[in-house]
Amino acid sequence: MAIWDDVIPQEEQGIYEQAGWGGRVGFGRRPALIIIDMFAAFVDPAYPFASAGARDCARAIRPILDAARAAGAPVFHTKGQRAAWPVQRGRWKTRGVTFPIMQRPEAYEIVPELAPLLEEPVIVKSFPSAFAGTNLLSYLIYHSVDTVIVTGTVTSGCVRDTVLDAFCHNFRVIVPQEAVCDRGMTSHKVTLFDIHMKYGDVIPAAEVLHYLAQVDQGEAKASAAGVGASR
Amino acid sequence: MAIWDDVIPQEEQGIYEQAGWGGRVGFGRRPALIIIDMFAAFVDPAYPFASAGARDCARAIRPILDAARAAGAPVFHTKGQRAAWPVQRGRWKTRGVTFPIMQRPEAYEIVPELAPLLEEPVIVKSFPSAFAGTNLLSYLIYHSVDTVIVTGTVTSGCVRDTVLDAFCHNFRVIVPQEAVCDRGMTSHKVTLFDIHMKYGDVIPAAEVLHYLAQVDQGEAKASAAGVGASR
Amino acid sequence: MAIWDDVIPQEEQGIYEQAGWGGRVGFGRRPALIIIDMFAAFVDPAYPFASAGARDCARAIRPILDAARAAGAPVFHTKGQRAAWPVQRGRWKTRGVTFPIMQRPEAYEIVPELAPLLEEPVIVKSFPSAFAGTNLLSYLIYHSVDTVIVTGTVTSGCVRDTVLDAFCHNFRVIVPQEAVCDRGMTSHKVTLFDIHMKYGDVIPAAEVLHYLAQVDQGEAKASAAGVGASR
Amino acid sequence: MAIWDDVIPQEEQGIYEQAGWGGRVGFGRRPALIIIDMFAAFVDPAYPFASAGARDCARAIRPILDAARAAGAPVFHTKGQRAAWPVQRGRWKTRGVTFPIMQRPEAYEIVPELAPLLEEPVIVKSFPSAFAGTNLLSYLIYHSVDTVIVTGTVTSGCVRDTVLDAFCHNFRVIVPQEAVCDRGMTSHKVTLFDIHMKYGDVIPAAEVLHYLAQVDQGEAKASAAGVGASR
Repeated sequence: MAIWDDVIPQEEQGIYEQAGWGGRVGFGRRPALIIIDMFAAFVDPAYPFASAGARDCARAIRPILDAARAAGAPVFHTKGQRAAWPVQRGRWKTRGVTFPIMQRPEAYEIVPELAPLLEEPVIVKSFPSAFAGTNLLSYLIYHSVDTVIVTGTVTSGCVRDTVLDAFCHNFRVIVPQEAVCDRGMTSHKVTLFDIHMKYGDVIPAAEVLHYLAQVDQGEAKASAAGVGASR
Repeated sequence: MAIWDDVIPQEEQGIYEQAGWGGRVGFGRRPALIIIDMFAAFVDPAYPFASAGARDCARAIRPILDAARAAGAPVFHTKGQRAAWPVQRGRWKTRGVTFPIMQRPEAYEIVPELAPLLEEPVIVKSFPSAFAGTNLLSYLIYHSVDTVIVTGTVTSGCVRDTVLDAFCHNFRVIVPQEAVCDRGMTSHKVTLFDIHMKYGDVIPAAEVLHYLAQVDQGEAKASAAGVGASR
Repeated sequence: MAIWDDVIPQEEQGIYEQAGWGGRVGFGRRPALIIIDMFAAFVDPAYPFASAGARDCARAIRPILDAARAAGAPVFHTKGQRAAWPVQRGRWKTRGVTFPIMQRPEAYEIVPELAPLLEEPVIVKSFPSAFAGTNLLSYLIYHSVDTVIVTGTVTSGCVRDTVLDAFCHNFRVIVPQEAVCDRGMTSHKVTLFDIHMKYGDVIPAAEVLHYLAQVDQGEAKASAAGVGASR
Repeated sequence: MAIWDDVIPQEEQGIYEQAGWGGRVGFGRRPALIIIDMFAAFVDPAYPFASAGARDCARAIRPILDAARAAGAPVFHTKGQRAAWPVQRGRWKTRGVTFPIMQRPEAYEIVPELAPLLEEPVIVKSFPSAFAGTNLLSYLIYHSVDTVIVTGTVTSGCVRDTVLDAFCHNFRVIVPQEAVCDRGMTSHKVTLFDIHMKYGDVIPAAEVLHYLAQVDQGEAKASAAGVGASR
């Protein structure tokens, strides 16, 4: 039974089946792990942007993070920041960013259980997609990544738009379903359905762990080196 | 009552309210109309990608198209095409594009009631977003557009990803709710809820018509001309 | 006499003339000023990346900056930073960034005569173009900018690539010729020739000042406000 | 002796040497060949946009094209088109596109000696960079490309801007110097100098042929397949 079965009627699922949607995009050879917005303001229930399941989600991401590090796969973290200039607020439809609690610097710290290592880029972003106005794409290309494992929060927002941008650049997209969370369960489940039908594989975290255990580290290192470089 | 009220529980809507989501982004001064994928394969029920409500949707778009033309607002159409090379299929999770009916050239013709005028660009795209791998963004900048009215199909796919890319570039996003459609009503309604909470204004088509009737055409023309040009 | 006349032979200039190159793209109605990389490491001769004419260039930018501020035109500054992760070094062909002097924090401070105001975004970039991996494009769209005035250093590097990205997005491009500088005069002059023939107007700073004095501030403010917003 | 030695004074070259510029970025493991704008209007002297050396350039590209095909490396061609809508002309500073000869369909045909194979994408572009408003980037990612070999015309225009966009996305850039050409020799040589100092390796075509002969085809095919896919 899929996580979206209690929200998407069978009849609607049938429409997708008839048009040949679903199936599996599969894993490539060079994965990267992207952890979206697991900072205090999106995890700690004291803040307006937190999701109820965020702490469980952090716990589910942790073994995937460990496995990615063990496999030598590049890891990227994203987070938000306080707007330094009015233009940084963009066209967001929320007053939440103006709440006093959001002015605390600690609101923007990544949760301790997922603390970035020194060599793992932390990408500060202003928009839903981790690709929008950031160097994420050039980082993925630097590492010859072909598969992105997208985790974090919120499923129907920053996770989904990061998935879409990755898909629009022809990366294979994998979403470990226990490793994403959202404010409301309806938006959460429907986004997972939409992604799995069309753009990427929404699968159990255990399957992702199994894959990461098989990634060839030698492959990753050989590719990064290049031939004949002298800079 | 909002169109999503029968799908998103009140409790979940309350979470957004408490965090200050919703509200209105409002209209700017220089709108453009974008009509997403209203070609045969997505409208005519004979094809696997059609939505049940697509013909009604076309009828709802028509007066908006007329109003945009009358206001001198730039209009952009998008459509798909048969893949000429394997790479064009990308990572799409559908076998539907390989069905024999999708090999007919007429599958890719925009429906007659929304036929583009000669001066209206038809953007052929491969990905969900009308911005991905196209010149749409540079066209919008050419016309100094600040507001995009997004219509067409499908709500939870190409419409939503076009909305997100527009939002990530700081355009004001307007979705006339009768002028978009989808294969399944659940994905349709939940996407409209997600957009209206966070990224753009999902409003009645009548309100968009009222706005377009007031757009200042002189403004649009003065801006395009430039000062001191001789090319 | 053009600044490039002693480097580009008349015969070569004639080739461009015959094909109808040159002419003027002209000014639009909503300019922005972009000041590229006027930080210590690119201005102060103690650093390996400085240009001989950088101090004069800063002096030439100053009145343009004053005029842009007086006109209410948005101003954007860019600068580099020390790489926090190896991937940030990208594929740059220089060992200069590894010199001890480049590890000083003060190497990355914008020169005092062009110090940003609090409300002026300072864009930290890793690549030549001020658009690459940054929010500059979305900031320009936020302000409905149609014309970018590009100044700073170096002409054949970050200035040129910023000009090209602006051109590829259909902005009108203006380069005040005293307000850009480079390490070598040949690359400097040839880039100004290439730009003026094909992509933008390379003109005396005095002409840019004259234009900025005429920009309609009311226009700029009206556009930013929007109609019916409540966020 | 470098091709730019008669244009860039030794003193100016010395400035780059002192700052650690130059060196070699080197080859990666997954190259792609990009052939820029080798269509009639840019090659045949009857047209206003042709370069004097374009026919020799086509001859120099041919063995590289053969070698890329033999190596199983993806090949991409670009070309222009007549503007279907005014907005497609963008901000180009040329009247040449309005000359009667440019209205002939055959002006936009790739030269016979470099005719694309059926499986090689032909990318129609409006701007200097082959990446601007096209799917080139997503195609390169689809094939896990890490190295782009850029050839064609003109060196200081479309070739240079394609090189810069590739560099800004962290691809290794290789320019075989006999395989690019330009209208004027000064712009040609200075661009090759600028590229070789900072962004990519400008090297003899023979060295590129030697590299392509060693590329591992098995590597390329294994990567494309993916694991567990069923679409």
